[in-house]
Amino acid sequence: MGRNVAIVGTGHSKFGNRYDVNIPELAWEAIKQALDEAGVDQKDIDFASFSNVGGWSSEPLPALVVLEYAGLTPKATYRVEAACASGSAAIKAAHDAVASGQADIAIAIGVEKMNESPTPTVIEFIGRAGNYFWEFQNFGLTFPGYYALYATAYMDKYGATEEDLCRVAVKNHYYASLNPKAQFTKPITMEMCMNSRYIAWPLKLFDCSPITDGAAAVILASEEVAKKLTDSPVWIESIGVASGTSNLSKRQGFLSLEAAVEAANMAYKKAGLNREEIVKHIDVAEVHDCFTIAEILAYEDLGFAKRGEGYKLLREEQTHKDGLIPVNLSGGLKAKGHPLGATGISMAVDLTRQLQGRVEKGRQATIVNGRALAHNIGGTGHYAYVTLYNLSKPRTR
Amino acid sequence: MGRNVAIVGTGHSKFGNRYDVNIPELAWEAIKQALDEAGVDQKDIDFASFSNVGGWSSEPLPALVVLEYAGLTPKATYRVEAACASGSAAIKAAHDAVASGQADIAIAIGVEKMNESPTPTVIEFIGRAGNYFWEFQNFGLTFPGYYALYATAYMDKYGATEEDLCRVAVKNHYYASLNPKAQFTKPITMEMCMNSRYIAWPLKLFDCSPITDGAAAVILASEEVAKKLTDSPVWIESIGVASGTSNLSKRQGFLSLEAAVEAANMAYKKAGLNREEIVKHIDVAEVHDCFTIAEILAYEDLGFAKRGEGYKLLREEQTHKDGLIPVNLSGGLKAKGHPLGATGISMAVDLTRQLQGRVEKGRQATIVNGRALAHNIGGTGHYAYVTLYNLSKPRTR
Repeated sequence: MGRNVAIVGTGHSKFGNRYDVNIPELAWEAIKQALDEAGVDQKDIDFASFSNVGGWSSEPLPALVVLEYAGLTPKATYRVEAACASGSAAIKAAHDAVASGQADIAIAIGVEKMNESPTPTVIEFIGRAGNYFWEFQNFGLTFPGYYALYATAYMDKYGATEEDLCRVAVKNHYYASLNPKAQFTKPITMEMCMNSRYIAWPLKLFDCSPITDGAAAVILASEEVAKKLTDSPVWIESIGVASGTSNLSKRQGFLSLEAAVEAANMAYKKAGLNREEIVKHIDVAEVHDCFTIAEILAYEDLGFAKRGEGYKLLREEQTHKDGLIPVNLSGGLKAKGHPLGATGISMAVDLTRQLQGRVEKGRQATIVNGRALAHNIGGTGHYAYVTLYNLSKPRTR
Repeated sequence: MGRNVAIVGTGHSKFGNRYDVNIPELAWEAIKQALDEAGVDQKDIDFASFSNVGGWSSEPLPALVVLEYAGLTPKATYRVEAACASGSAAIKAAHDAVASGQADIAIAIGVEKMNESPTPTVIEFIGRAGNYFWEFQNFGLTFPGYYALYATAYMDKYGATEEDLCRVAVKNHYYASLNPKAQFTKPITMEMCMNSRYIAWPLKLFDCSPITDGAAAVILASEEVAKKLTDSPVWIESIGVASGTSNLSKRQGFLSLEAAVEAANMAYKKAGLNREEIVKHIDVAEVHDCFTIAEILAYEDLGFAKRGEGYKLLREEQTHKDGLIPVNLSGGLKAKGHPLGATGISMAVDLTRQLQGRVEKGRQATIVNGRALAHNIGGTGHYAYVTLYNLSKPRTR
């Protein structure tokens, strides 16, 4: 139906406290790298989707400011926002532009400077991304509190422990220590995690992703153009997208993000994959571990584990590099960092490089199927994007 | 290349001071009408693009909140922002989703409540949408000031007068008085306009568009689906998009918005139209008259008039209903109102109804070619979208 679309270039800035650069400079680090990898020039780009949540920023509408700094004017652009899933939404926007024939080459750019937040603080702002009127304003819930509700319900129902949550943190900090672009560069121990202070019981400091500055970019091209640019394109095989209620009091329960299940099933269906045996088809995944409990929920929402058994994958190290289904070998949001608008694009960058076998040795997955999965959530399941990347060209579209 | 895409339903709220409703309620007025016109149900929609600038709003990430209120969860969505051109950008996003085969039916929703602005004021916020760091912060320029630079340069070079600017206001207020959805419902006289107080010389109160609350929505469908839903689809014939510098000090001059020329030429080229005789091909246009001078610049940027002769069209009433090329028969941003995120979609709604011959009699254009044009600008030409709508199915895509 639409045209095939491939990733032909990727770029990724160092994540962390980036007081050394402003927003356009930070974005440029990723854009420059992506242009160089793709071997294209700014003039070759037809369309740029720009992912940024901002809101706390003094530059409230930064899309054009970044585009201009990067030499991409007079090209077409708009900003895309779907809370913490904005990056994946921007990839969908760029994908659709290429697949529909509106563009031959498009770039998706994500950037966020969260450490420059004035009043209202970034924590308050993110809290408003929940259900503002009812839950944020009346009950003062912010995101650690939202996810603590999920963690509590999950532990109560299935017998998972605080140690199980910390297993996610220890794993992801370990892989971050091997990723030079990550915010946190040192491994942590189980003891450090378990002894860290509570933020919202049962979530402790090391259960939470940090406040991060960072940028990432991917260049997408139509099949015809991709073949000219590279011998190792990574194809966008399918995109699943869904939304869910913003109101936690309206949810069926706190054991699953319903939108994530919906998005996963849509992505699997489009790719002709059977959910029941999905781990057999995927070599490596990046999932939205904004809090450690979120990674465990993701295992189950994606079908990597049965309901109530996600935490057992961790006990058996099945989501480590050499396990059944390696997850967050980049360090994840948890330890690579979570610069909101850049996060989904960072997932695409790392998975592209994983499929092409060119990440650091200690965190390189074994590529058998040639397929990778990105799971990117906005809010507490308000928005869910599941994207499948493949070394082989999709058979049908 | 991509699939054909048609508008199959339109919705438009009353524009004005809408203290009577909150954002989701305001959006629903437009969404409900669009669903009813298209004869579809929420469950039939595959994708929703949501246009909103917000920034001053207590609900900073409203896409999901509106989607949920409108019964559109768990459908796919993201927010689109391109400053005051956000509405047209959302139409492009929905168009690309349908044209690429990612969706069969999509809705583009635009909503803005500008009158609820707390601190920073909406004027300050919009000012930041210019070049924040240099021009807003250092020189205190806000939008009336930006466009006053253009007005001054234009009057100086071509001999246009303040009366010519007021001719735009008088025309657009007249047509707004015939449009029950418009913010301003009474015609004004040349004397009223000329005697109104200066905001930024030579722009007076009646040269400026107002602060507006409002919503608009269009439902788009693939050719196959559109044929089942309606006998009178309006096709999206082509979309031209470009961007330009945010920094006025870097512009070549103040007599044209370069991005608008670029976008127009792209739209004309895709539709196979000759710019030199463009007025022969278009029955009616909506242009971005955020200030009266902007409408005159648009005439020239779009090729409706030669350089320096745009204001003469007004003197000869050639952009009135029965003139050579009727412009802003809805009342335009100037008098229908300018709720930022809704504006581009409001243009699409009114042009669809114009082409279908169903607007109020006194402002109904004569439809000969079956083609309409929307010109939507973000910032002072930072973003430019020119979209052609056609009663006939495009020959080639």
